[in-house]
Amino acid sequence: MNIKITGTGSYIPDTIEKNDAFLEHTFLNNDGSVINSPNDVIIEKFQAITGIAERRYAENHLNSSDLGFFAAEKAIADAKIDPETLDYIIVAHNFGDIRHNTVQSDMLPGLAARIKHNLRIKNPKCVAFDILFGCPGWIQAVIQAKAFIQAGMAKRCLVIGTETLSRIVDKHDRDAMIFSDGAGATVIEATEEEGGILSEETASFTYDEAYYLHFGNSNNPEISKDLRYIKMEGRKIYEFGLIHVPQAIKTCLDNSGYGIKDVKKIFIHQANEKMDEAILKRLYRLYKTDIPENIMPMSIRELGNSSVATVPTLFDLVRNNKIENHSLNKGDIIIFASVGAGMHINAIAYKY
Amino acid sequence: MNIKITGTGSYIPDTIEKNDAFLEHTFLNNDGSVINSPNDVIIEKFQAITGIAERRYAENHLNSSDLGFFAAEKAIADAKIDPETLDYIIVAHNFGDIRHNTVQSDMLPGLAARIKHNLRIKNPKCVAFDILFGCPGWIQAVIQAKAFIQAGMAKRCLVIGTETLSRIVDKHDRDAMIFSDGAGATVIEATEEEGGILSEETASFTYDEAYYLHFGNSNNPEISKDLRYIKMEGRKIYEFGLIHVPQAIKTCLDNSGYGIKDVKKIFIHQANEKMDEAILKRLYRLYKTDIPENIMPMSIRELGNSSVATVPTLFDLVRNNKIENHSLNKGDIIIFASVGAGMHINAIAYKY
Repeated sequence: MNIKITGTGSYIPDTIEKNDAFLEHTFLNNDGSVINSPNDVIIEKFQAITGIAERRYAENHLNSSDLGFFAAEKAIADAKIDPETLDYIIVAHNFGDIRHNTVQSDMLPGLAARIKHNLRIKNPKCVAFDILFGCPGWIQAVIQAKAFIQAGMAKRCLVIGTETLSRIVDKHDRDAMIFSDGAGATVIEATEEEGGILSEETASFTYDEAYYLHFGNSNNPEISKDLRYIKMEGRKIYEFGLIHVPQAIKTCLDNSGYGIKDVKKIFIHQANEKMDEAILKRLYRLYKTDIPENIMPMSIRELGNSSVATVPTLFDLVRNNKIENHSLNKGDIIIFASVGAGMHINAIAYKY
Repeated sequence: MNIKITGTGSYIPDTIEKNDAFLEHTFLNNDGSVINSPNDVIIEKFQAITGIAERRYAENHLNSSDLGFFAAEKAIADAKIDPETLDYIIVAHNFGDIRHNTVQSDMLPGLAARIKHNLRIKNPKCVAFDILFGCPGWIQAVIQAKAFIQAGMAKRCLVIGTETLSRIVDKHDRDAMIFSDGAGATVIEATEEEGGILSEETASFTYDEAYYLHFGNSNNPEISKDLRYIKMEGRKIYEFGLIHVPQAIKTCLDNSGYGIKDVKKIFIHQANEKMDEAILKRLYRLYKTDIPENIMPMSIRELGNSSVATVPTLFDLVRNNKIENHSLNKGDIIIFASVGAGMHINAIAYKY
C-alpha cells in the first residue's frame, strides 16, 4: 500500500495588496520609537529581503474556514472522489476564524467542522478536527493522515491549510507586510499505485525557541496592551531556519532511499525569499553538490506568507503549470518542507 | 503490543466559585429580555438540572497552558518516565490561552509548544501539537496517540486536555454557570503488558448540528456585537447526546470483544448530570440490561464542566480513590466517552 496525494486545490483571494498600500502606514520600532527612514525606503528594503511585492487579502465577508472550504471543493473535484467517502478532514490553522475588524479567534465549532458543514457531507464517520502547529501545520496534518492510514484507521483524508493573517497583523510593525491570506487543500489516499509519501521528519524546538514567534503588543504604545498581534524575532528565526531546515530535509531524504540528485522539486514554506534561498544553498552544501536549475518554485513575490497555506498552494500551482519554468512529471522525487511558530520544522519526501 | 495509559495527573484550580456567586448576576434571555424569576430560583433550577453546585476558576495569573503543564508534570511523575523520551505531546483545547480580563485567544505558539517549553524538554524529536475537537478533544487526542503508536511512528505520548472556560463565558447567560477551568493529562505508551485500548469510535455530526455550540454575542444587547462568548442550544444538545452517545458507546464496546456486563466504569464527559444519567439509562436500555451500581463516577457537582479536562480529571481522581464508592482494579473494562462542539462524539473501550 502507498499513500498518495490524489487531488489538490487552492484558494487565492482576489484582493491584491501591493507594497504601495503600506506607504501611508506609521511604522515604528518594537520599542515604539520612530524609524528614521521614509516609508518608500522601508518598503524597498523589505522587498529586497523578503522578495514580497504584493500579497492577497481575503474579502471582508470571508473567514479562514470559507477560504479552506473553497480550496477543499477544488481538491475534492480534482481527486474525483465522493466527499461522503472521506474518513478524516484535518484542518491546519493558527488563529481560527477572525472576522474582519474584530480581534477574537472564533474556533467554536472548529474550522474542520465548519468546512465539513459547508461541504454538506452527511457521513458522521468522516471525523473533522483542527490542528495547530505553526506554519508547518499543513505538512504535519499530511503526516497525521499518513499515520491514520498506516494504522488502518482511515483510507482517505482531506487535509487543508487555511489562514487569514491580514486580520492579526500589527499595522505599526514592518513585519505586517509579510503576512497574507489563503488556503490550500489536498486529498490523501491509500492506493496500490506506485509512489506517494516516502519518508517524513518532524522536530519541535521549544527549549529556547518557543517564543520566536509569539502573540505580542503593537509597536504603537498608544494601542491597548490587551490587544495582541503576530510578533516575530526575524533575525533569530532566519538563523534558526538556516541551521535546522536543511538538516531536517537531509534526514528525511536520507530515510527515503533516494539521493539529492534524484530530487526534482523542493516546495518550501514561503516565509522569506532570502531565507528560502539560503536554506537551499545550505541543503546542497550538506551534500557537497551544486544547486540544479528550477529546483525551488516560489510564489512569495505575488502571494506573500499565508502560513499553513503556502506549501499546498504552491504545490497546486505547480501541478497546474501556473508557475513559470516549473512542472511535475510522474515519478519525480519532491520535497515538502516548512518551519514556523513553535518552533516546529518538518519535511516530507514524496514520489509524484 | 498493547497501548496503555501508564500515568495520569490533573490540575484542579484552588478557587471555588459556588452557585451563590451568581446571585448578583443580571441574567437575560437570548433575546435580551429579562428573565421573570429571581436569581435564587434560576440558580436552584440550574442546579436541579445540571447537578452543578460549584466550579473551579483558574487563578488570574494562570492560563490554560499553565494548567495543562501542572497536570502534565503529575502524569509524567506518575508514569515514572523521563520526559525526554516522549515522542509526542498532544494538547486538546478549544480557546487557547485567554489571559484574565482579555478577550483574545493566544495560541502563538501553540499550547503544546508552551507546555513542552515549561517541562524543559530539550529533545526536538518530541513533537508538540494542539488539536481542537470540542469537549471530546482529550479522547480524540488519545485516539491520535494510538494511531501514531500503531503506525510505528511513536512509542510514548503525553496527552493533555486543558481549558479556562471561565474566561469566555457570557455573564448574562445562565449557561455561564456550567463552565469551569481545569486540566487532565495522561501518558500513553506501547507496552507488552496486558490490557490497554481495546477499541474506539468517533463521529462528527456537522450537517445540521455544527452550530449547536458556537461563538455568539452576549445576551446583553448593550455589549458590543464584536465580542463573542460560548453559546449553546442546550435543549438540542441534550436530545442529540441522548440519541448518539449511547449508540457510539455500544458500537465501541461491541468492537472491543467485551459485553456490557463486563463494563466496570463509564467515564463520561461531565456536561450535565441529568444528561449523563439519561445517556446511561439509554445505553443500558440498548442492551436490555439494568444499570449496575456505582458504574458512572461523577465530578460535576464540585468541578462543573471544564470541557476537554473533565474525562482525564475524573479518571485521575478515580485512579487515586478520590471519588467515593469508586475504585479501579487491574483487568477492569472501562469506557471513556464524550460529546461536544462540532458536534463530535467519541468513545474508547479500555482494559485497565
